Amino acid sequence: MAKQQKAKQQKQVPVILITNDDSITAPGIKALVEAVKDLGKVVVVAPDKPQSGMGHAITIGQPLRINKVQMFEGVEAYQCSGTPVDCVKLAVDKVLHRKPDICLSGINHGANHSINVIYSGTMSAALEASIESIPSIGFSLLDYSIEADFSGAQHYARLLVQQLLGKRLDKHLCLNVNIPAVPLKMLKGMKVCRQAYAKYEEKFDERKDPHNRQYYWLTGEFVNFDKGRDTDVYALKHNYVSIVPVQFDLTHYTLKEKLTKSLGL
Amino acid sequence: MAKQQKAKQQKQVPVILITNDDSITAPGIKALVEAVKDLGKVVVVAPDKPQSGMGHAITIGQPLRINKVQMFEGVEAYQCSGTPVDCVKLAVDKVLHRKPDICLSGINHGANHSINVIYSGTMSAALEASIESIPSIGFSLLDYSIEADFSGAQHYARLLVQQLLGKRLDKHLCLNVNIPAVPLKMLKGMKVCRQAYAKYEEKFDERKDPHNRQYYWLTGEFVNFDKGRDTDVYALKHNYVSIVPVQFDLTHYTLKEKLTKSLGL
Repeated sequence: MAKQQKAKQQKQVPVILITNDDSITAPGIKALVEAVKDLGKVVVVAPDKPQSGMGHAITIGQPLRINKVQMFEGVEAYQCSGTPVDCVKLAVDKVLHRKPDICLSGINHGANHSINVIYSGTMSAALEASIESIPSIGFSLLDYSIEADFSGAQHYARLLVQQLLGKRLDKHLCLNVNIPAVPLKMLKGMKVCRQAYAKYEEKFDERKDPHNRQYYWLTGEFVNFDKGRDTDVYALKHNYVSIVPVQFDLTHYTLKEKLTKSLGL
Repeated sequence: MAKQQKAKQQKQVPVILITNDDSITAPGIKALVEAVKDLGKVVVVAPDKPQSGMGHAITIGQPLRINKVQMFEGVEAYQCSGTPVDCVKLAVDKVLHRKPDICLSGINHGANHSINVIYSGTMSAALEASIESIPSIGFSLLDYSIEADFSGAQHYARLLVQQLLGKRLDKHLCLNVNIPAVPLKMLKGMKVCRQAYAKYEEKFDERKDPHNRQYYWLTGEFVNFDKGRDTDVYALKHNYVSIVPVQFDLTHYTLKEKLTKSLGL
């Protein structure tokens, strides 16, 4: 009886899995752990090196390592040699041995609004969780700096996790949350948005090595083609925290019908 | 005048960019080049090593190399040190110096139906092209073998490219085409489908190195939860070539409305 009660009590403490793509040593993940660690049992499984721009990459050509580390006071934490998506998979199968109640990713150093969602390791980790029926949120601050001020992001991360843990969540819920790089008092609140239609205009920086052979650095200019007022880019520009619910069904349903007719199928 | 006519004539020959994720030496890309090379001016820019499972990864922490190679008879070809997505970006900016008329990716050795679209380097290359307003198709054969029989895949790849080049295409058109691993005569035709709801149930294979330290290999069992008859998995099972139009807007519009209400925003 006492055992059953204890089990019930333990069940009520939500398990919160935290990961990121900037690596376990990044200030952003520390800020996220600090912001939510009293809301449940937090377990961290994060990459042992920066994995920005890794998208939804998984490691299939080599094995993975995972090691327990002392990194966050009073919080169980592991560093993993793989990608952010690998971290989520390993955390569920080999660390937690169960699904966490929610998976949080970030806080990313830099924006993941609009098309960035596709390239982002932070958001791919969150999306992987949602594929595995774990509600998830990716947080990104619009400041690349290692010394970024995470206080506004922390405030809204905590608020949102607290609100969501109190609700019955869609098991595939996956939120892409971006926070403007302004002091907390300038933030106007949260807005649920759609992904803006924007892209990078690539310009590779061409250089020559000491042996006179060419090499290229990827650079690019962000261009927003979207004039809508319901986009994440618009909300962020007006100092709102943007929340875009994202999904892993990539089917383009409108084109599906058009194409069937067009191909005479 | 003669110059103008020549320019007009040249313009009528479509430029076809071909890439993949299995590397430029894979039999699958050779099969694709052979299948379509008389339909336009084919240029190949593909990874110099296998990049399966790289998803939408881009290379930002190190520079890229690109080298011209003699690989396909009468076809301009380059190998690139980056990911499939890097290949598309570099091809447009530094090889073609223009957008190709269509971008083809594959033929992949192995299935990219259902949730595989998220992890696949083949499909991420195609999706990257569509972000850059280049219509694109990713082709995948349901056979991992290096000695796979690509004749059925070649037949349908050629047919589809031929049909599409004759039409005015949506600039963001991106098709995920999978071909069953059966002889051509057993293929029943093409079907436009939606992405099946399926996932991998991960089981990491745990081993010990000679120093008694643990490491893990990612393995997993594919599980299809989707009973629909309009999915790619269903079509493939019934020996149809599946075509899923995909998009890079990940916004979950249904959840967007629900969430706005639920958070009281």
